[in-house]
Parts: sequence; C-alpha cells; structure tokens
Amino acid sequence: MADPITILGIAGSLRKDSYNKGALRAAQQLCPQGAKLELYDIAGLPLFNQDYEQKPTAKVTEFKQRIRAADAILISTAEYNYGLPGVLKNAIDVASRPYGDNAWSGKPIALMSAAMGVAGGIRAQYQLRQCFVFLNLDAVVQPEVAIGNAPQRFDAAGNLTDETSKKMIAQLLQNLVYKVRLMRQPMKAAA
Amino acid sequence: MADPITILGIAGSLRKDSYNKGALRAAQQLCPQGAKLELYDIAGLPLFNQDYEQKPTAKVTEFKQRIRAADAILISTAEYNYGLPGVLKNAIDVASRPYGDNAWSGKPIALMSAAMGVAGGIRAQYQLRQCFVFLNLDAVVQPEVAIGNAPQRFDAAGNLTDETSKKMIAQLLQNLVYKVRLMRQPMKAAA
Amino acid sequence: MADPITILGIAGSLRKDSYNKGALRAAQQLCPQGAKLELYDIAGLPLFNQDYEQKPTAKVTEFKQRIRAADAILISTAEYNYGLPGVLKNAIDVASRPYGDNAWSGKPIALMSAAMGVAGGIRAQYQLRQCFVFLNLDAVVQPEVAIGNAPQRFDAAGNLTDETSKKMIAQLLQNLVYKVRLMRQPMKAAA
Amino acid sequence: MADPITILGIAGSLRKDSYNKGALRAAQQLCPQGAKLELYDIAGLPLFNQDYEQKPTAKVTEFKQRIRAADAILISTAEYNYGLPGVLKNAIDVASRPYGDNAWSGKPIALMSAAMGVAGGIRAQYQLRQCFVFLNLDAVVQPEVAIGNAPQRFDAAGNLTDETSKKMIAQLLQNLVYKVRLMRQPMKAAA
Repeated sequence: MADPITILGIAGSLRKDSYNKGALRAAQQLCPQGAKLELYDIAGLPLFNQDYEQKPTAKVTEFKQRIRAADAILISTAEYNYGLPGVLKNAIDVASRPYGDNAWSGKPIALMSAAMGVAGGIRAQYQLRQCFVFLNLDAVVQPEVAIGNAPQRFDAAGNLTDETSKKMIAQLLQNLVYKVRLMRQPMKAAA
Repeated sequence: MADPITILGIAGSLRKDSYNKGALRAAQQLCPQGAKLELYDIAGLPLFNQDYEQKPTAKVTEFKQRIRAADAILISTAEYNYGLPGVLKNAIDVASRPYGDNAWSGKPIALMSAAMGVAGGIRAQYQLRQCFVFLNLDAVVQPEVAIGNAPQRFDAAGNLTDETSKKMIAQLLQNLVYKVRLMRQPMKAAA
Repeated sequence: MADPITILGIAGSLRKDSYNKGALRAAQQLCPQGAKLELYDIAGLPLFNQDYEQKPTAKVTEFKQRIRAADAILISTAEYNYGLPGVLKNAIDVASRPYGDNAWSGKPIALMSAAMGVAGGIRAQYQLRQCFVFLNLDAVVQPEVAIGNAPQRFDAAGNLTDETSKKMIAQLLQNLVYKVRLMRQPMKAAA
Repeated sequence: MADPITILGIAGSLRKDSYNKGALRAAQQLCPQGAKLELYDIAGLPLFNQDYEQKPTAKVTEFKQRIRAADAILISTAEYNYGLPGVLKNAIDVASRPYGDNAWSGKPIALMSAAMGVAGGIRAQYQLRQCFVFLNLDAVVQPEVAIGNAPQRFDAAGNLTDETSKKMIAQLLQNLVYKVRLMRQPMKAAA
C-alpha cells in the first residue's frame, strides 16, 4: 500500500469568503484516493524584510515546516491589478529565505485561480510560473484551471458550484498526485 | 515660471540599506530644475484584505494622499524570486482599493530597479508595467534603468557610486518631468 | 485646422477572414474626425535573418517607409499558443533592424486583440507591450480592447458586430489621436 | 540496456553563425551517455497562415515528424526586441497546428538562450515557458542557462568557449534525460 500523499493548499487572498478559499475547499472533496489536502492560512505572516530574515516569527517557522512536511503544494490565487496579489507573493518570498533555506525547493506543485473577470486570474498564474523557475518548483502543466466570472460559479458563501470547474480541479489533482508518485519511484539503473 | 513638480519616490524593499533606497537617494540629487523627489517609506502598510478595505488604517490613508498630491511617481524596485517583491505589490494593491478609489490612476510614472544579479531586476519591472495597464498609469518608456551587479555599483552604506547608472537615472527623470509638463499643457483646439 | 492624422493598421494574422482584420475594418469606421486608418498587410514579409538585414527586400523597405510615414500605429493581434503570433513578431523584428534603423522608434501606438477564447488575446498584448520598451514605442494605456469569444462577436465574413467592442475601439482611437496631438504641441518654455 | 534517447535541438535564429547554433553544437558534445542530440534547422518553414494549415508544405510535415520521433526537445533561443524571435515562435506555431494535431504535446523539453546583452535572453525564455502551458510541454525547471555577453563567450565562428556555460548545459541535459527516463518508467500500482 502506497504511503498517503499530503498536499498543502494555499489561497492567495485573505478575504474570509474568498473564491479561492472556496476553490480549495472544493478541491478537498475532489482529492484522489490516497491523497488529502490540508489548508494553510497565510494570514499573520509578516511583510518580508531582509534585515530580519535571520529571526523568523513563529508563524514563518511554522509555514516553512508545513511546506517541507507536505508531499506537494496546491496554490489557488486571486489576481490583483493584473498580477499576483502582494499578499501571496509576500508569503512566497518569506518562505524562500534566507538564502540557502528555500522551503519550496523541489516540491511538486499545481496552481489554479479564480477571479471576477472573464480571464479568471491567468495573469497571476503566469507570474507564479515564472517565480517557480527561481524557486525550483516543478509545476503541473495542464489543465489550466482559471475560474472566471466567479460570482456565477460560486455561491454567496464562496462555495464552488460549477461542475465543469470541479472536473478540471479533479483532473489537476490527479496530475499532481501522479507527479508525486512518479518522483517517488526508484529509477531503474540506466544500464 | 512653471509650477514646481513633486515626484513621490517609492522603494520596493524594506531593507534599511536597500540598493533601491540608495538609487532613490541618488535620484534626489539628479532631479531636473523645477522638480523635487520626496521619498515615501512603505513600511507599516498592512497586508491587503478586502474585508477591511472600507476601514483603511491611518498609514493607508496617508499613502493614498501622498500619491494623489504628487505630480508623478518614481518606483525603484528590488526583484524577489524572479518577480515583483510581495511588499511592493502589496503597497500597490492597498493604494488601488476600494473599487472606484484607485489612488494611482492617471499619474505619470517612471520605474527603475537594482538587484544583485546581472539582469538588475528587469523581471520585476515588466510585472510593474503589466499592472500599470489596469491601474491606468502612463509609464516612461526609456531609458530602462536596471542596475545589475549591485554590490559593485553601490557602496557599503547603499549609496550609488556608478556614474553610468547616475546618467541613466538623470535621463529617466528628465523624461518623467517632460511627460508631466506635456500633460499639463492645455490642448489647442483640434479645429 | 490641424493636420490630418494617419494611423497605420496592422493585423497579427495572415488568415483572409481574420477576426483581427475585421476589427481593423471596424476601426476604420470609428476613427475620430481628422484621422484616418490605413491598413497594411504583413503577408509577404520574409522571415528575419540577420545575415541578410543589410539587403532588405522591396516589401521590407516599403513596410518601414509606411511605418515612418504614419503618425501613429494600431495593431490588432491574434494570440497563438498563449503568445504573440510568430508572423506578427517577425514583422516587428524585420522593421526594427538593422541596428540603428528601427522604424518603430518614437511612434504613438495602440493595441487591441481578438481571439476565440474568453481572454480575447490579452497574453499577446502583454508580450507586445514588453517589446515596446525596447522598440521605444509609447502605447496608449487604456482601454484594453480584447475581444474574446470572437465567433459570437464577428459575423461569418469576419466583420465585427458587437456594439460594446465598437465603443471601446472608438475610445482607444480617440486616446491614440489625443496622444499624437499632445506630442505635436510645442512645449511652453519651462520658465 | 536502456534504449538510446534522441533529443531534437532547435535554434531560435536563422543566422549562419548564430550563438544559439553554437550553443547547440556545444550541447552535442555534452550529451550524457545513452543520449544524442540531433540538430534541426527551421529555415524554410513557411509563415503560418491558418487558411493553408490543412495543406502543409513538405518541410512542415518533416518538422512535425522529427518532433514526434524525438524523445525530447532542446531549444536554444535568441532574444529579439525583448521577446521571442518571430522566426522561432512561427516554427512553434506551425508545428502546433491544425487543431488536434499539435506535434509538441507531451514532450519533455529543456530551454536555453544566448544573447549579446547581459540578461542573456531570459525574456525570450519566459515567453517560451508561457506557450508551453498551452502546448502541453513539460519543461526542465533548472538550471536556467542564459548565456549573456555572448561575444565574450563564443569565438568568431560562433563556438562556445565559456567553461561555466558548458557545465550548465551539461547539467541541463542530464536533467532532461532524467525526465525522459522517469516518464518511461512503468508506474507501480498505487495500492
């Protein structure tokens, strides 16, 4: 029996009824067998200041531990001003430092987004993918889950109601879990 | 005699001896006649949470007032993880909200960056330019001031010593001031 | 009476019934008084090869002359594979060379896009804006005209039928013409 | 004994003495045991026109066959005007069409770049990575091989002489070959 897979879910918005928190709750119900999705709230992380990176707050230490303990990461990001929300990028920055202690390095990761506009947050997703090159994060390529027109696809409490989006999230999670399992395989000797 | 032009300078890093703070101090000495550059420290701004955007902190209110009172903006940004620092993007997000009360709209703006790597922060600059499309910020096109290999171009206290960079900053400021003056001109009637 | 303004319109697709060619035909009808939009077909430009840039084909020479003779540029681009179509980028590359003979430099420009997907070609627009920094092209900031779900907004012959899109194009053209007129103004002496 | 791995190498420039062609020749010497790198010249591909995509030229058919026959792809791209060269993007577009016949889908891929400027072509690399999301191309994350100041790192005939760059290319190829081997492994049953 394969070891269970733990995915850490991070929403790129602090809003209580955030669509992206709702998308992550939906993802919890859609996890493939053998995997579970735990949600982590980035509220309370400090704004990154390199002068203090050697004295992390308890929250920063906990955040980095949770990332490292997870087998994979799932980010669901909002889009602010045609880009990544500052709050999410700051959380990424905080956990990447100090130099030599990047908690993200090597994790399989998947990303999705939800937003009010028709494009559904894709601009934020591309900025995430670009920072993954530096962070050494290997992201699932497809499907691209970008839930646009969010008010039509979530109910008033921020729960995802759109079936098409749910199917795409389920596929994304399957691909993420597949990537984790592939990387756990011992490589056959090349000869 | 033309009205004096006030430029608000914002550094995209909280570090005390930040290269970008140093680049802004250099810019203060390089301002064209009739213009002055005032520095604003984004430390102390809260992480953006839409649930509380209708009750801004005193610091948020002050920040938006300073932006609105300025004739133009100069941002000097660091680059974190191949993108815009979360702290700077968060400051931009905070001042852009709530909906209908975007303090940035319509300001002439110029951007520069300094970073340890050879590319000098250009990735962060392109992400800034993309969010300017949403924010309605008209940015100076050239020169692209990206000060790479920063430890060779700043002294230990973070003061800019590189003459080539100084010339480029002076040109950038001239172009920014030109844009402000152009936009102040009354348009001749088209007929 | 102000001099008439000539805008050169370039579609980022070679397809005969291209939505973007249709968007440009619509723009011809929506030009503000005193301005006219002339369409230029990039079909027949050679693939750029630096080895031959000193011996441009007649088509390349003509293209660069048309760009230089225009007061402003309007690009309407398709989006291929989440980016700028190769055919359009190649046309931009061809007219930018050889070094020191960039035909684009200093032109006021506006951009729009049409595409089958919901996002309407925005990814291509941001790649255009990034290359404008190098080319020294001063682009209109807003409105962002990105016509998504194109089959619902154009008729079978590729003519734009959507009224909202037409209004946005009209506004974009007004802003482009305003920029041209502003840059033609003699600057008042600063003192 | 593992099957040999064939990598198809594509340079994003048509210039005879292209730095990127030189980088690919260097890569041929740096291939890990069991892998070989074959170079493919994109010169002669037509500019993409959807009206004719159902009647591909012989060169297009050959290009798509070579992509499909390869186990992996290595692109070395130039950077033109702060973006992907039109000639390379056009080659990518041509091989991705018609709809449902995308030759790139599912291939492991690695990318590198060489350019005269200090940034070494990174802007072109990020545009490649973005189009890979649509094309379903799984790219090696690190190392980021971007050879800047190319005239100092290649000899007059375009041969790579810089040892640091060679080491990075060797590592990139190892990571690409590892990815191919990982994807060839039969997955253990999850239970």
